[in-house]
Amino acid sequence: MSAPQIPKTQKAVVFETNGGPLEYKDIPVPTPKPNELLIHVKYSGVCHTDLHAWKGDWPLATKLPLVGGHEGAGVVVGLGSNVQGWKIGDYAGIKWLNGSCMNCEQCQHTNESNCAEADLSGYTHDGSFQEYATADAVQAARIAPGTDLAEAAPILCAGITVYKALKTANLSAGEWVAISGAAGGLGSLAIQYAKAMGYRVVAIDGGDEKAVFAKSLGAEVFIDFTKSKDIVADVKAATNGGAHGVINVSVSEKAMDQSVEYVRSCGTVVLVGLPAGAKISAPVFDAVVRSVSIRGSYVGNRADSAEALDFFSRGLIKCPIKIVGLSELPSIYDLMQQGKILGRYVVDTSK
Amino acid sequence: MSAPQIPKTQKAVVFETNGGPLEYKDIPVPTPKPNELLIHVKYSGVCHTDLHAWKGDWPLATKLPLVGGHEGAGVVVGLGSNVQGWKIGDYAGIKWLNGSCMNCEQCQHTNESNCAEADLSGYTHDGSFQEYATADAVQAARIAPGTDLAEAAPILCAGITVYKALKTANLSAGEWVAISGAAGGLGSLAIQYAKAMGYRVVAIDGGDEKAVFAKSLGAEVFIDFTKSKDIVADVKAATNGGAHGVINVSVSEKAMDQSVEYVRSCGTVVLVGLPAGAKISAPVFDAVVRSVSIRGSYVGNRADSAEALDFFSRGLIKCPIKIVGLSELPSIYDLMQQGKILGRYVVDTSK
Amino acid sequence: MSAPQIPKTQKAVVFETNGGPLEYKDIPVPTPKPNELLIHVKYSGVCHTDLHAWKGDWPLATKLPLVGGHEGAGVVVGLGSNVQGWKIGDYAGIKWLNGSCMNCEQCQHTNESNCAEADLSGYTHDGSFQEYATADAVQAARIAPGTDLAEAAPILCAGITVYKALKTANLSAGEWVAISGAAGGLGSLAIQYAKAMGYRVVAIDGGDEKAVFAKSLGAEVFIDFTKSKDIVADVKAATNGGAHGVINVSVSEKAMDQSVEYVRSCGTVVLVGLPAGAKISAPVFDAVVRSVSIRGSYVGNRADSAEALDFFSRGLIKCPIKIVGLSELPSIYDLMQQGKILGRYVVDTSK
Amino acid sequence: MSAPQIPKTQKAVVFETNGGPLEYKDIPVPTPKPNELLIHVKYSGVCHTDLHAWKGDWPLATKLPLVGGHEGAGVVVGLGSNVQGWKIGDYAGIKWLNGSCMNCEQCQHTNESNCAEADLSGYTHDGSFQEYATADAVQAARIAPGTDLAEAAPILCAGITVYKALKTANLSAGEWVAISGAAGGLGSLAIQYAKAMGYRVVAIDGGDEKAVFAKSLGAEVFIDFTKSKDIVADVKAATNGGAHGVINVSVSEKAMDQSVEYVRSCGTVVLVGLPAGAKISAPVFDAVVRSVSIRGSYVGNRADSAEALDFFSRGLIKCPIKIVGLSELPSIYDLMQQGKILGRYVVDTSK
Repeated sequence: MSAPQIPKTQKAVVFETNGGPLEYKDIPVPTPKPNELLIHVKYSGVCHTDLHAWKGDWPLATKLPLVGGHEGAGVVVGLGSNVQGWKIGDYAGIKWLNGSCMNCEQCQHTNESNCAEADLSGYTHDGSFQEYATADAVQAARIAPGTDLAEAAPILCAGITVYKALKTANLSAGEWVAISGAAGGLGSLAIQYAKAMGYRVVAIDGGDEKAVFAKSLGAEVFIDFTKSKDIVADVKAATNGGAHGVINVSVSEKAMDQSVEYVRSCGTVVLVGLPAGAKISAPVFDAVVRSVSIRGSYVGNRADSAEALDFFSRGLIKCPIKIVGLSELPSIYDLMQQGKILGRYVVDTSK
Repeated sequence: MSAPQIPKTQKAVVFETNGGPLEYKDIPVPTPKPNELLIHVKYSGVCHTDLHAWKGDWPLATKLPLVGGHEGAGVVVGLGSNVQGWKIGDYAGIKWLNGSCMNCEQCQHTNESNCAEADLSGYTHDGSFQEYATADAVQAARIAPGTDLAEAAPILCAGITVYKALKTANLSAGEWVAISGAAGGLGSLAIQYAKAMGYRVVAIDGGDEKAVFAKSLGAEVFIDFTKSKDIVADVKAATNGGAHGVINVSVSEKAMDQSVEYVRSCGTVVLVGLPAGAKISAPVFDAVVRSVSIRGSYVGNRADSAEALDFFSRGLIKCPIKIVGLSELPSIYDLMQQGKILGRYVVDTSK
Repeated sequence: MSAPQIPKTQKAVVFETNGGPLEYKDIPVPTPKPNELLIHVKYSGVCHTDLHAWKGDWPLATKLPLVGGHEGAGVVVGLGSNVQGWKIGDYAGIKWLNGSCMNCEQCQHTNESNCAEADLSGYTHDGSFQEYATADAVQAARIAPGTDLAEAAPILCAGITVYKALKTANLSAGEWVAISGAAGGLGSLAIQYAKAMGYRVVAIDGGDEKAVFAKSLGAEVFIDFTKSKDIVADVKAATNGGAHGVINVSVSEKAMDQSVEYVRSCGTVVLVGLPAGAKISAPVFDAVVRSVSIRGSYVGNRADSAEALDFFSRGLIKCPIKIVGLSELPSIYDLMQQGKILGRYVVDTSK
Repeated sequence: MSAPQIPKTQKAVVFETNGGPLEYKDIPVPTPKPNELLIHVKYSGVCHTDLHAWKGDWPLATKLPLVGGHEGAGVVVGLGSNVQGWKIGDYAGIKWLNGSCMNCEQCQHTNESNCAEADLSGYTHDGSFQEYATADAVQAARIAPGTDLAEAAPILCAGITVYKALKTANLSAGEWVAISGAAGGLGSLAIQYAKAMGYRVVAIDGGDEKAVFAKSLGAEVFIDFTKSKDIVADVKAATNGGAHGVINVSVSEKAMDQSVEYVRSCGTVVLVGLPAGAKISAPVFDAVVRSVSIRGSYVGNRADSAEALDFFSRGLIKCPIKIVGLSELPSIYDLMQQGKILGRYVVDTSK
């Protein structure tokens, strides 16, 4: 493959200060370091985390000025001098974890997202809301040739995250997993991954439309929290004693606390979302006597990412998206702020 | 071995009602069912749980009248018609879990203590505060010939419980375990088991005497909560980033909540004690980003029990005890109620 | 449910000496011991192991006279005095492991089939080739109400065995499993269980008809050993580097040795069949440098059995059978001896 | 720390052709690539693998000309532009695996030594038989300040290898491990690591001197193959039924085959050595019925390496060495070829 033409400048959405204007403008195309790829980002998903990065309301400071975005799918157009295992033309993905030290105890155990030196795309490293982005070659996600890059974009954060959460629940095929918040963006992906892994799904959410949607994705049972008189009892009845695992993509404190009650003895409650300031609380007596585990799950490592993308590339996971131009990104931030976003937005960097 | 002479009646401590008089008196020697052993109990440990059983202040009702006790060490003197694998003269132990259905999903996975039909010694089944007790042959603990039965008694509950908690922390040899409440009855056993398993121990407790004691048992580091200005920082400093696992034998809510802070990222906090009404509370953001696990650990299963006893029989675990006659048991209950108990009491059923 | 009428005598197929006449005749209905169920066997699968038991050509001696059979599906009609968790009318299965000591280290770790005192149905305990059989209540398999008992019968040995082998391969959903001997009785069940567990299947067998059959059950790739010039290369090509796991239900020594070559580095080769006198042989250098595991897998434990039956009861596993009367069993032994058996025979004990 | 003075040339032992002269001479000091450290090698262990690299008698071709050695301990004196997490003055170790692609499935799962692109020190990358060597910063081993670098050298291959083998045996504290070839270089380290991990050791080797030595390192039982009439029976008797795991550092085919017999049911036989052309052979019937695992174990990954070094730095592992000058290395190769080597040689690169 002949080397692609790489321009000097490109379009990007940038902000200079947290909460400041989101500007769609020309900036220089970055140069990859020896360990980096230069990726021509074709599409990027938009995630709620991007809103936090812009606002700067999380405990960790962002780089400034910043190009946000951490669900970028594109094509490799440049290779640092030290890069192994990649070639020009490969499909590559930009994900939340851009890079890590690869030397600490966490990195040695493939918990790279728990590295104290973790470098985060669209947060401490310019991300995927630009046409050309650099990415650490070790962490960049490999995307199979022929994959639809627009649809793959949300897998790079949302997909990997729920897949990792399901692995954290440590279930066997044939066991029950309850998904709290099942019909939302993360939940709908979680149902599909759970099915692909052989688990039986109890979907928990509110409303008839969501019931139909969750069942269409593979949930065996739907429990409507707007109608149920006793969610704990209903989950236990549906699963013959409680779900073996629970994935909390809902960030309601009450829902999380309830999940500790309806999980089966010796089962695992997984926390995934990042609600600012929320606490989970559990009665010690019950947790001990029933030998329950409560586990936080963050983002996937390299293997998790590859596996989550593989399920997608094999056609087992569908992720409905709405595509808009990168130039329209500021209006998507507005919708997110107003809590009016429906479904998953993906920006086309060429527009 | 010739069959032992078994009397018709025996001495026991019995109560007719929860909170009623603890009577030391003659009662009939029980007859083993087809699946049961008859054990001549020589010694029995006294545990705080015995106080709860007597008071009846836990959510689960006790059998009445009741003979308490669930740390009994003795000799097999009778075999039900269906018993396999035991013979007259074997040393046997009575532990908290007397029996379970062996048929449900929990039993199939060796989580017998989580069986909904669990039968509990000194609670729903007459226990070890008598000279002759029956015990399910499947759950009864096998004690190696030559073992000191008086010293082995507390292993049957306290020892197995902390050993199980350490297994629940899922550590590798060479990793750090923090033990909160390290110099108490459970904690001092936990330090010794942890050492025998190759872990490095940070002991947390209060006072110079306890520091000396904990270090004498094998703790590498002692953190004195009466002197430390920042326990979380001190544990992190001592362990180069946080303990890989924490065993909470302290039942202080504050201590438990702190343990979620000083556990290493991707580490495991284990809850062991059964404080009535206590809650553990953890910030979701931190639990997720640091991928922390919080796990309840109850009592050991058959394998855990055999292993915990094996470490003891090999001389790796010391458990200082005070031996008194069974007839003096009511006064031990008094001491427990007043919170004045120091060390581990063991009753000699012959006195 | 009113207690069923149990006759004094029943029909059974019995042999007095190994290799002696297989007689279809009246024998007394057995009486359950305190720990046993009395099961009215409706159907029983016929397995190659039954032939070995009759011939007596395995290292372990059989009970004599013997009623063979270890894939019996029926209804509980009697309960020993000590039985917990079962009631008259429950569906129950008789499987290879009738009972074990429940006390040794292997039993404590749920490896009951590895117990030195293991009691085997149709081998050391009268089995399922009779209308009424006794079975240890702890090991008897629970079958869901409404299940087709004739079709469930082969699951009780063949199904559980391949399911256990798949668990022994220790795979994750999305990984490749090669099944050597994929279109036979065990292999066809293995393909279906593998699919239900989320694995990707490479089926290895010979002939176009078998290719069509294996793919109809869910195999993604079929490799025909009668046509392939290099099976090792073909498996590696199909799986992008080798299968993560291999299930050897073929008992060809050459096929087993090849499987060590086409398994992926760090992958697991599972041995399932019991060919008399066969050896597996592997080059040490390659096994070390590629970190390959070779694991023997015997029969499932209680949990494996329950899980394998659950997949079946949920309709995910189909097992085509041919039903004949129990009285015709001797002619099935003839077919097995001549190697002429096709598909799975199930006997109806009422005929 | 001020930057150290790095000379242009240095002393090294080099060969131009496989089996050709081993020349101690001046060569240029290499320049680290962006991802590499420059390490001032102080000491290097000499391993049998170095002989194979020189002879070129393994299936994989070596780099030529080549500087051998893969047990180098020294000090970081230079950093590639891209290196994270290291600083000048850190202690660092050169081990067999110099680097890998960090992108393939094996690397993603931390099986970097199984990477198809693995780069090997002293084999495909100039190794530690020189004063200044380059090493991939991700794979280089971190050695704690204050560690004795001469004694640490053999840990970098021999120590890590046996530690990994012990982890591969997948044992719990308190279980029995048999070490076949226990009093040799690898075996004597294996005994000490096994003790530090809480395992009980059966040492197998020949001669009274070795018995005394093995017991001095912590073996509970010594079985002398020159005296035992039945090694299998002796191991089973000593361990109450067979060792839970076996580490084969002996490369005798007979010893390896025997180990499959004396391993406990459900236990694991680990193969570690790399005898050219040897095969392990096991009866399928026995492997299946006893559910035995046979696993190849290669070299450790980054975490294994850090852990093995940590046990050493904490003083739990002693490795007696003989120090000679680098210039004397050719004579050590002579001794190895003649099979006359006793104990572990370490070369001092300054002499």
